[in-house]
Amino acid sequence: MDNQELLALLAKSTPSKIILCVLDGVGGLPHPDSGKSELETANTPNLDKIAKDGVCGLMDTVDIGITPGSAPGHLGLFGYDPLKWTIGRGALEALGIDFPLKDSDIAIRGNFCTLDAKGNITDRRAGRLLTEINAKLCSKLTDREYEGIKVIVSPVKDHRFVIVLRGLGLGANIAETDPQILNVCPLAPKALDETSRKTARVLLSFLNDAKDILKDQSPANFFLMRGYAMMPHLPSMEEAYKLKSAAVACYPMYCGLAKAAGMTVINTGKTYAEQVAAVKQIYNDYDFIFLHAKATDACGEDGDFNAKVKAIEEIDSALSDIVNLNPDVLVVTADHSTPAAMAAHSWHAVPVALKAKYCRQDEVKTFSEKAFLSGGLGRFKAKKLMNLMLANAFKLNKFGA
Amino acid sequence: MDNQELLALLAKSTPSKIILCVLDGVGGLPHPDSGKSELETANTPNLDKIAKDGVCGLMDTVDIGITPGSAPGHLGLFGYDPLKWTIGRGALEALGIDFPLKDSDIAIRGNFCTLDAKGNITDRRAGRLLTEINAKLCSKLTDREYEGIKVIVSPVKDHRFVIVLRGLGLGANIAETDPQILNVCPLAPKALDETSRKTARVLLSFLNDAKDILKDQSPANFFLMRGYAMMPHLPSMEEAYKLKSAAVACYPMYCGLAKAAGMTVINTGKTYAEQVAAVKQIYNDYDFIFLHAKATDACGEDGDFNAKVKAIEEIDSALSDIVNLNPDVLVVTADHSTPAAMAAHSWHAVPVALKAKYCRQDEVKTFSEKAFLSGGLGRFKAKKLMNLMLANAFKLNKFGA
Repeated sequence: MDNQELLALLAKSTPSKIILCVLDGVGGLPHPDSGKSELETANTPNLDKIAKDGVCGLMDTVDIGITPGSAPGHLGLFGYDPLKWTIGRGALEALGIDFPLKDSDIAIRGNFCTLDAKGNITDRRAGRLLTEINAKLCSKLTDREYEGIKVIVSPVKDHRFVIVLRGLGLGANIAETDPQILNVCPLAPKALDETSRKTARVLLSFLNDAKDILKDQSPANFFLMRGYAMMPHLPSMEEAYKLKSAAVACYPMYCGLAKAAGMTVINTGKTYAEQVAAVKQIYNDYDFIFLHAKATDACGEDGDFNAKVKAIEEIDSALSDIVNLNPDVLVVTADHSTPAAMAAHSWHAVPVALKAKYCRQDEVKTFSEKAFLSGGLGRFKAKKLMNLMLANAFKLNKFGA
Repeated sequence: MDNQELLALLAKSTPSKIILCVLDGVGGLPHPDSGKSELETANTPNLDKIAKDGVCGLMDTVDIGITPGSAPGHLGLFGYDPLKWTIGRGALEALGIDFPLKDSDIAIRGNFCTLDAKGNITDRRAGRLLTEINAKLCSKLTDREYEGIKVIVSPVKDHRFVIVLRGLGLGANIAETDPQILNVCPLAPKALDETSRKTARVLLSFLNDAKDILKDQSPANFFLMRGYAMMPHLPSMEEAYKLKSAAVACYPMYCGLAKAAGMTVINTGKTYAEQVAAVKQIYNDYDFIFLHAKATDACGEDGDFNAKVKAIEEIDSALSDIVNLNPDVLVVTADHSTPAAMAAHSWHAVPVALKAKYCRQDEVKTFSEKAFLSGGLGRFKAKKLMNLMLANAFKLNKFGA
């Protein structure tokens, strides 16, 4: 019996409330001058109070030493094993623009490229095309049909776009057309198994038409395809944990991930204060609310230590309203670390604090990576956080008699 | 290779001695007035000495956030994965009255109920029948035979009893007869697979006779059946770890669990001091002794903080005799937490202290949930405790060369 089967066996619906606050990428590393991390530098009275009143620890969202992307990072927090429920690159790009993928759709990542007169690739990214031109080209390519399969094309950013094949009888096991080197032709979209033959034929027809449509464009006169993927069919939060769940997130990727887990995505403004206001409005209608903060990750990715500290402080101020809702279980954590020092996602464990009536408080008084080393939760994998949230909300029956 | 296969591969028989003291449900939560848990409140010089001389940590007996029943809690401590070796409700009830189940027996939980003149259920528990009346009715029902299958009926408590089918060719995949609602007839014990057909026929014949036998009784004029189960065939402690093992426990459930693991159950008086005396008597004859204390759990279930503190102190006094035996490995731990604040089993990790010559002592000086957070064992799953006990007793060969 795996963890999710166990939770499905034991979960029960109750009126108790859980709020999961994800501060994206909040985990950090010490600043070389001060020796203090972003969390240790920021003035965070509300986070510190949650740590003091709750029980704290550190989590590996995928596994020790593994740097998670946003998708596996969040799937872990939602209780899905991120090594079991992998989401292919094409489906991820579709999630990232909040494209409403259906169960049988195949999503493909497309890159506009430049071919020379002989048809050889001279630039695999077409000079990192402007997004506006990308959008114009996509509108020329989209809404075709071959063998009853619809082809939908949507721009993402720069030279990147998504191709979605919609219809029945499609497989996703197709060779990438990007040869990864210059001065050769794009490869053919070869079917790599029997069920993907129709997909290959459809793509070949589409490529023929596309070549024609794009032939006079410059620099983007063709495109390369990779990451053919269907969306994995996750059991919903309702099926998996008997939770009526909602997501309050601004960015399409997180809305898409929440939808994939069967959450209702709530309309919200772009600031964290507006998001918190949205949580207050829907609080009575759901028993699990996922609140996503993006600024911490964005500043970390920019390598801007001070901006990340400021982002943490702004989130901290707004959090008092969440605390005042007094949910049965309040969790503050991250999907991965994004140390400003590295200007990238990292493998470092993320801090987690859980406040609930019977959480068995520890001696931790401040919200930081170091302080949480002595926390009562110890160190564990993020996919087990759902066990703790459900247990502390009295939403799990006893196992065995 | 799973953990148990690994241990079977490496285990060797030696004369060294292991004593495992289980203080049932000893893990707790802070008292709202003092902020101290039951263990932190109790005066425990012997437990503190064991913690000081040993190495300490915290264990999840099933998994993070999962509240264990007594059976999975103990199976974990005995090194059996409690998610693999599940024991069905009927078999558990049989264990609970120390009924000597054979490998091919099917055990069923029975509830006496009340039917009206039309045969509809008016009370699913027959007014929570007195146990004495239950016993009288069971003696009327027991010792029948159908198609060569013996039917044995034994009282448990209140309206609950156990039906055991003994004979060959039986399956346990039978529909429950309890419809879980009132004003309808009991359901038929339908076979849900081919191998359970004979079981269904036997039960139907038995139910027909039982209806006749009980028809003039009040309020218990019939019964409902659920939890059809065979006892899983655990590898014995001898097979699994080459241990000659004994159990000193008063309550039938724990004696039954120990028997299921192939331990010899020792006769003992009811007080902890008497149990400790029994351990001293058999000490030379076994190399693994499981000593079970029930009072800590009972007081926790009653929600009586002070009584639980007193129970801990009484156990602590008696423990000095165990320490004086100077076993090669002495472990004190629990099968789950039972905080008085919750008056129930809980999911909170249990404290564990292990004393042995080469245990690699830590800095922990007192026996408590908080003190053990900084213990040398960290936090781990109870099913790995057997690895540590065997290793510290020099009963495991090196893995690989």
